[in-house]
Amino acid sequence: MGAQRPKGALLGVDLGGTQVKAALFSHLGEREAVARAASPSRESAEAILGAVLAAARELGEPPAGVGVGVAGVLDLREGRVVQSPNLPPLSGFPLRERLRSALGGVPVQMMNDANAAALGEFHAGAGQACRSMVLLTLGTGIGGGVVLDGKIWEGAAGAAGEVGHMCVQADGPECSCGGRGCLEACVSGWALVRDAKAAARDPASAIASLPELTAERLAGLALAGDAGARALWENAGRMLGIGVANLMNLLNPECIVLAGGLARAGDLLLAPARRAWEHQAFERARASCQVRLASLGEWAGVRGAIQPFLP
Amino acid sequence: MGAQRPKGALLGVDLGGTQVKAALFSHLGEREAVARAASPSRESAEAILGAVLAAARELGEPPAGVGVGVAGVLDLREGRVVQSPNLPPLSGFPLRERLRSALGGVPVQMMNDANAAALGEFHAGAGQACRSMVLLTLGTGIGGGVVLDGKIWEGAAGAAGEVGHMCVQADGPECSCGGRGCLEACVSGWALVRDAKAAARDPASAIASLPELTAERLAGLALAGDAGARALWENAGRMLGIGVANLMNLLNPECIVLAGGLARAGDLLLAPARRAWEHQAFERARASCQVRLASLGEWAGVRGAIQPFLP
Repeated sequence: MGAQRPKGALLGVDLGGTQVKAALFSHLGEREAVARAASPSRESAEAILGAVLAAARELGEPPAGVGVGVAGVLDLREGRVVQSPNLPPLSGFPLRERLRSALGGVPVQMMNDANAAALGEFHAGAGQACRSMVLLTLGTGIGGGVVLDGKIWEGAAGAAGEVGHMCVQADGPECSCGGRGCLEACVSGWALVRDAKAAARDPASAIASLPELTAERLAGLALAGDAGARALWENAGRMLGIGVANLMNLLNPECIVLAGGLARAGDLLLAPARRAWEHQAFERARASCQVRLASLGEWAGVRGAIQPFLP
Repeated sequence: MGAQRPKGALLGVDLGGTQVKAALFSHLGEREAVARAASPSRESAEAILGAVLAAARELGEPPAGVGVGVAGVLDLREGRVVQSPNLPPLSGFPLRERLRSALGGVPVQMMNDANAAALGEFHAGAGQACRSMVLLTLGTGIGGGVVLDGKIWEGAAGAAGEVGHMCVQADGPECSCGGRGCLEACVSGWALVRDAKAAARDPASAIASLPELTAERLAGLALAGDAGARALWENAGRMLGIGVANLMNLLNPECIVLAGGLARAGDLLLAPARRAWEHQAFERARASCQVRLASLGEWAGVRGAIQPFLP
């Protein structure tokens, strides 16, 4: 067990299908220590709870408050996970109460992990000093969150913020959600790999010679000047730009923050994106909205999760 | 000059490119009388101001407060019209101050006409009893407004709510805004007429025999069983449904209200729209969102314009 932390320390947890990340923060929200472990996402709800408690012990227990961002649909009133495709054993699990009692009755706040990341960037990252922000996390899939007037916009049933499942291409490629032409089906890591696989069917393509089809490899190939790889990024960027323009025209947020692995491709993705949103968005909405890269990286979620305890 | 109205009556004005509509309301927001005139939208700012004042006189002057919804981009702090494609002489005109002084110093509230219509339906129409609502006005173009937590979401520069200019079809038809594949370019009155003109190039098509190409005529032909006309409505409805699904997934509003002439086509438009949003929207967002027809018709805007004066 780690050293006893001063009264008032806060524990933030980001509970995903791949990793459990945790961080200890001062009562003012300064990050002091981090821990991470593989997520036992297929084992059992008790194993997942155990992984969170192990991270808490590693960081020093007990904190004065715990915030946890969970990948899944939550019932915030009951403190229960309703459904989680990435953490299946948690469906129906009373996570808030179980965490609370295991940690000596400490107050626990739960939120969706994408909303936690959005709150983190909003309060401590690229969205600081803005009143409204949309986060787009461009990873294997696309997550995100909508912050309006300083608060997550949850919607009528807590289902708002699915920015990755805005259709930008009617009759476009099939999406993981069952729809077609969603932003995620056009721009995400899996969409890029799908298109790279199709391109690699031509054995003359340099893409066919890659040892593995990943966004990093495809970015390297594009930067080396390969036309096929450049075309993949060009198309993904253009679709991203259309999605960004839609958010500008609909919500006119003060900033749109791009996070996740794909955003690291830089101008390969962002130059065509910018061309698309400059063409598609109204001048007034565009001129009043900054598009920025995220600044908290993979630690946005733990920071957002403790936000309810901060002044 | 009309009879003197009791102290506390409110005047609502809907100032558009085609008509000036006005209505007198009780201090509780009950509509008591209406007036309308052609909008002198191309003449001069003074002529437009004169038309509003004439409507006010016809209804009984002076009211205790005036709310005016204006088709255009407004500077709400200065009470000025910034730009109005439908009322060009108003660009730069200090409408709020000129109305105030012409009506004896009465308080005047200005807002965008689409936002006024949204507020009207929200407080007195199909959106009553909801906390969040998106209005889609399906007319020659598509207007709309976003109401969140009971208030118009204006965005960082008052440019939010352009629901008609959300792209649902990358590389789709050109839009009036300069973009491509906007909802308006796929579903509006002008988009329907454009597609009907293309269909009418085939002289064997029943559409070619219509005396004029209007949404009403095309609806009549479709209801009579013509396959070509039905296909036009089917496509428009499908695109509308994708737009509705995008709003559900992004904002999860408690209701989405459909207004405007095209909404009167009923199931010709709404049946394919429903199929599309049921396919494209997340179940949780869809199940918590009612899609309704507007109930105030063309008088939504005047009602919304006086909302700032109501308790």
